[in-house]
Amino acid sequence: MILYDLDAKNNIRLSPTAWRVKAALHHKGLAWEEIPVAFTDISKLNMHPTIPILVDGDKTLGESFDIIAYLDEKYPDKRVMTSISESKFFENWCNGTLHMPLAHLVLKDIYDVVLDKDRAYFKESREKRFNISLDTVQNGREERVIAFRALLNPVRASLKFKPYLGGDAPNFFDYCLWGTFKWGFAVATFDLLEKDDPILAWFNRVSL
Amino acid sequence: MILYDLDAKNNIRLSPTAWRVKAALHHKGLAWEEIPVAFTDISKLNMHPTIPILVDGDKTLGESFDIIAYLDEKYPDKRVMTSISESKFFENWCNGTLHMPLAHLVLKDIYDVVLDKDRAYFKESREKRFNISLDTVQNGREERVIAFRALLNPVRASLKFKPYLGGDAPNFFDYCLWGTFKWGFAVATFDLLEKDDPILAWFNRVSL
Repeated sequence: MILYDLDAKNNIRLSPTAWRVKAALHHKGLAWEEIPVAFTDISKLNMHPTIPILVDGDKTLGESFDIIAYLDEKYPDKRVMTSISESKFFENWCNGTLHMPLAHLVLKDIYDVVLDKDRAYFKESREKRFNISLDTVQNGREERVIAFRALLNPVRASLKFKPYLGGDAPNFFDYCLWGTFKWGFAVATFDLLEKDDPILAWFNRVSL
Repeated sequence: MILYDLDAKNNIRLSPTAWRVKAALHHKGLAWEEIPVAFTDISKLNMHPTIPILVDGDKTLGESFDIIAYLDEKYPDKRVMTSISESKFFENWCNGTLHMPLAHLVLKDIYDVVLDKDRAYFKESREKRFNISLDTVQNGREERVIAFRALLNPVRASLKFKPYLGGDAPNFFDYCLWGTFKWGFAVATFDLLEKDDPILAWFNRVSL
């Protein structure tokens, strides 16, 4: 299998959702070859408008959720999703609740590791999408990170119940949120979580 | 089976979590007898400090989540929870994210339907817990309800994917949130949701 992922400086991979697919492949013991792609080269692939893209034989798939659901169907051993619809709720919660405030905390940090060839595209598209300048987007983040951390309280409550969101072993719920933090931690130049946050210990337990 | 529920005026039942248990019993086709109890009579039962309480033969159980997990284990037909830990996350999200802002929208409305014998207890305990007077707790709720509705965006996104949070049929995820709204709608004297909110149609689909 071939997985197209988002390239950046220092060998960083910039797609939270590609990390979810890699966690799912790893969970299932499936081998893959990774091809890093620049933002501005995705459209040249002519495969799918966004990263990740998975090619499995004659199948080309986009959207991490659909890719993981496909993997569970095609390779049913060691399922990643217990329930597709419950996994969809979790993805909706994770992306819809966390990604926007997280991006507001680290957008300039991301810009600083974007490939040189992508910098103009990234700056223009993100300043338009977030309606804010990269020079000021991170202003006040030491205050704003407190509200971001509070959004994760349902996760902390769950980690008191079981070591993983999926129970005694990680599953889609874990990999979904893990992908978000794999992305955040790779770029953030400040502490997204406090050092004694149980989510940090969980992140390390999940890590591939 | 006997279920102890929280009594109020107009035959209203005031416990969102007891509604979850009733939905689970109904889902499984199990019969039960309901015994309504006043807030100030719960401790006299000497069974469990909070409602709901389920008595099944010689078993006495408290905490809706534990009761529903017990029902799934004892009566495994028509399971309510697909995954206990994923259900726990959803409960943590639902209670932890929605109940406090929802209570701030309708606390005086609840007070107005509390049994006469419970009114002094309710006023004192809730004013202390929320650190606010019942006379002012609902001030500005027409503005605040907008933020409350936005908290439900992950649910709306999921209802675009499938008719229920549980997929093609309701399960714990649905019953959990349904209990919250069964409680909210029973007491609210204003619109918690907009008339065209897909969550309203979902609520009616789930309703027993």
